[in-house]
Amino acid sequence: MWFMRQAGRYLPEYRAVRERHGLLEICKKPELAAEVTVTAAEKLGVDAAIIFADLLLPLEPMGMKLRFEAGEGPVIEEPLRTEKQIARLKTDGAGELGFVAEAIRRVRKHFAGKLPVIGFAGAPFTLASYMIEGGGSRHYVATKSLMASAPELWAGLMDKLCAVLEPYLLAQVEAGAEAIQLFDSWAGCLAADDYARQVLPYSRRLIQAVQARGVPVIHFATNSAGLLGAMQEAGAEVLGVDWRLPLARAWEEVGFRPAIQGNLDPVALFAPAAELRRRVEAVLEQAGGRPGHIFNLGHGILPETPVENVQAVVRWVHEISATQQERLRSRHG
Amino acid sequence: MWFMRQAGRYLPEYRAVRERHGLLEICKKPELAAEVTVTAAEKLGVDAAIIFADLLLPLEPMGMKLRFEAGEGPVIEEPLRTEKQIARLKTDGAGELGFVAEAIRRVRKHFAGKLPVIGFAGAPFTLASYMIEGGGSRHYVATKSLMASAPELWAGLMDKLCAVLEPYLLAQVEAGAEAIQLFDSWAGCLAADDYARQVLPYSRRLIQAVQARGVPVIHFATNSAGLLGAMQEAGAEVLGVDWRLPLARAWEEVGFRPAIQGNLDPVALFAPAAELRRRVEAVLEQAGGRPGHIFNLGHGILPETPVENVQAVVRWVHEISATQQERLRSRHG
Repeated sequence: MWFMRQAGRYLPEYRAVRERHGLLEICKKPELAAEVTVTAAEKLGVDAAIIFADLLLPLEPMGMKLRFEAGEGPVIEEPLRTEKQIARLKTDGAGELGFVAEAIRRVRKHFAGKLPVIGFAGAPFTLASYMIEGGGSRHYVATKSLMASAPELWAGLMDKLCAVLEPYLLAQVEAGAEAIQLFDSWAGCLAADDYARQVLPYSRRLIQAVQARGVPVIHFATNSAGLLGAMQEAGAEVLGVDWRLPLARAWEEVGFRPAIQGNLDPVALFAPAAELRRRVEAVLEQAGGRPGHIFNLGHGILPETPVENVQAVVRWVHEISATQQERLRSRHG
Repeated sequence: MWFMRQAGRYLPEYRAVRERHGLLEICKKPELAAEVTVTAAEKLGVDAAIIFADLLLPLEPMGMKLRFEAGEGPVIEEPLRTEKQIARLKTDGAGELGFVAEAIRRVRKHFAGKLPVIGFAGAPFTLASYMIEGGGSRHYVATKSLMASAPELWAGLMDKLCAVLEPYLLAQVEAGAEAIQLFDSWAGCLAADDYARQVLPYSRRLIQAVQARGVPVIHFATNSAGLLGAMQEAGAEVLGVDWRLPLARAWEEVGFRPAIQGNLDPVALFAPAAELRRRVEAVLEQAGGRPGHIFNLGHGILPETPVENVQAVVRWVHEISATQQERLRSRHG
């Protein structure tokens, strides 16, 4: 078990670092990125550390300017709208992101095999949507319009993103990442058809490149109930799903082949203890007895989340899973 | 066929009225609400007119203050957060919303049976989420927290909403609405379990009250792939679905019993004509030969939508459906 965005703003230790350093600064200084990664994993007692980094880091070496406004999320100067802008994007700059691999190396060294380290990147669709919309979006009008009106331009953009993301991910593997999560956070805004034609091939390419190095991939999207079949074709070992589809149904949908990661609603972490525990039990109940479940949320931890609730969930998941495994062993033994 | 938000900001005729009158003012003056309703339906050539009204109108007679900020959507002063505030909500004010029924009466008279009129209301969950969050929301933290931490308070709020929404909807039926759409636009943020326990009973109560007057109900939510089974139990004649789940799969999911409404992505209306037509054909292809499909979008028309594209979709749907029906008739005759 681990949590998406486990080293985030809800943690006082992170906020303390953040008071002295900008978000991009923390990402770019391996000692700081490693520190917040390690602190969060140790404080929570989770089973894996995900490297602290921002989804949008690859945009800078491609030539786009990026800043974070307080409370507003990322703002991208000059969003991509024209063929010319897409043509200008650079694809040879993945090396400039070496600080992420270096942070992974430090975390790996710190844990010395006692806790696995997860690397990650945003999937090409999600990064393209940020580049085109200029930030977060509700309707993805510009992105979907580009996909519909200029499919060859879209394909070119996705190719360029892959050209940067592949070496970026392989450098993380090289540095010791023991699993990679590919975040296609916003792919759930797409109809399954469009996903299959214009997104899936690029995500698959990246997943295969990582797998070729012997490292497993977790492939995640929110709102993916309609996409699970197509996402499965991308071939990751694990599919990350949100709380909107019950875990058991998500599994059934993909024929129980890949492992499933999820799917507690991050907002459940605000609930009173008894109710929160009931929800944790419900997730584990649906996973119980089946191989290949990674307990996680259905999306990242929210900024106001009470830390003690996150810690309680870790204790409960460990305790309940141990009991489940005990029961399974005695049944089969 | 008809379009959600067909009388909206994308129409120059609506913008002209809007220049002289506030949004709430248009809703509250039956002659204006009827005018924008009729103008849109006639300009587009759709098969039904949905009355122009705002989802949040019932909040005012319950004692909440409401305003619309330019480009920001609704802002609710003093969002509901305490037991005391919920206790103070009034439930006897549905009569103050008589202007909506009056607007329906006028539209009905104008069309004189040539075009059916659809009435509507927001479902209790969606209205409660606005009341609690104070406007639109991304994560529904306050709403879900109230549901989890004070279920009896939540139930009381839902009861109060039903007490206002039931007479509001029945007045619309009385005035001549020939179908009612219940918009549970944001219910798709919930896990199916929570929906079934804390939302479904109230929506069902309203649906049954309308059906008892002999009027059919269209029950709509976005992001509802995980909820369709539970929504079906609410018993509406028609389920409205968005583009995230292919129409054929949505139908299969509910055993082909209720009719389906949907499900073109509103953003498809920005695509070049050939691509837009291909998408319209794909929706009708999936609906083809099955009874009970209402062509619609998966959500409301967006403000910047080109009017001529909306009109083209109406022509294509009529033309393609006519061919489909022709084919069916010759097959069965």
